[in-house]
Amino acid sequence: MSGRAIRILGIDPGLRRTGWGVIASEGNRLSFLACGIIKPDTDLPLGDRLAVIHAALSEIVASHAPDEVAVEQTFVNKDAEATLKLGHARGIAMLVPAQAGLSIGEYAPNAVKKAVVGAGHADKKQIRVMISMLLPQSKVKSDDEADALAIAICHAHHRVTRARVEAFAT
Amino acid sequence: MSGRAIRILGIDPGLRRTGWGVIASEGNRLSFLACGIIKPDTDLPLGDRLAVIHAALSEIVASHAPDEVAVEQTFVNKDAEATLKLGHARGIAMLVPAQAGLSIGEYAPNAVKKAVVGAGHADKKQIRVMISMLLPQSKVKSDDEADALAIAICHAHHRVTRARVEAFAT
Repeated sequence: MSGRAIRILGIDPGLRRTGWGVIASEGNRLSFLACGIIKPDTDLPLGDRLAVIHAALSEIVASHAPDEVAVEQTFVNKDAEATLKLGHARGIAMLVPAQAGLSIGEYAPNAVKKAVVGAGHADKKQIRVMISMLLPQSKVKSDDEADALAIAICHAHHRVTRARVEAFAT
Repeated sequence: MSGRAIRILGIDPGLRRTGWGVIASEGNRLSFLACGIIKPDTDLPLGDRLAVIHAALSEIVASHAPDEVAVEQTFVNKDAEATLKLGHARGIAMLVPAQAGLSIGEYAPNAVKKAVVGAGHADKKQIRVMISMLLPQSKVKSDDEADALAIAICHAHHRVTRARVEAFAT
């Protein structure tokens, strides 16, 4: 396990609101770097909204230079149209880091909640409270930013565990 | 209604196979220009498969210079995971023409079948037979290419109808 801090970009994709957050992870220490929301104009045609998300995420990857990326592995069960729309936004969220040659971790919502709150069934308010405690400098103003930072934290935990397992195995 | 031929790119998006076809439309006359399938290596991570589709479609738009693009407006009802995956590929199919500043028509599967076969409940074989009659030079080798050309033909029909309505109205 290297002691070098790595930067992790977490993305919570959505056609209306795509949350993003960047943290630094060094061993067990986490620190906040940046977060925000991408909100394409809902009057735009679908293709143009996706192009707005693509351009914004590309700019975020270029300016914050993450080493790794994590995206929530979620889908809506009840409504096929909503699931398809989410898939459009999530496709862009997976495309941008792949175009930059970055590895992408995918985590189920329960894994993200467990990493941050300690239980797989936390609500959005609990996640925000925990993010404000784990990353006090983040001052998140929205659930989307909190979720994106939670996804980045989940990835940080998993990669530390992976590194320990690998160090033990060799 | 201008007599100038326009080029239409039809896209049948899918994560395993994305069919594409380019036709020229001049009034009621249609002619075949090109078609093919994009098949990303299924061993690649999801992000990289989407990057392959993005690069291939960008290359197709650059080399065939379509004036307009048509994408099937489809979703899978039974399986949320399949719907989400289709959404990923469809997001890329909508992104590429939007990045090139092209307008995108979306058509439901029934509208596509009706435009080509004359009925909304045609099967894949009927579509292939009709494509070989409507575009004899196409010699399509797959359902994905036939579907993509059918989507382009559907768009050609709709834009001629729209032009007639607009000409009548002015």
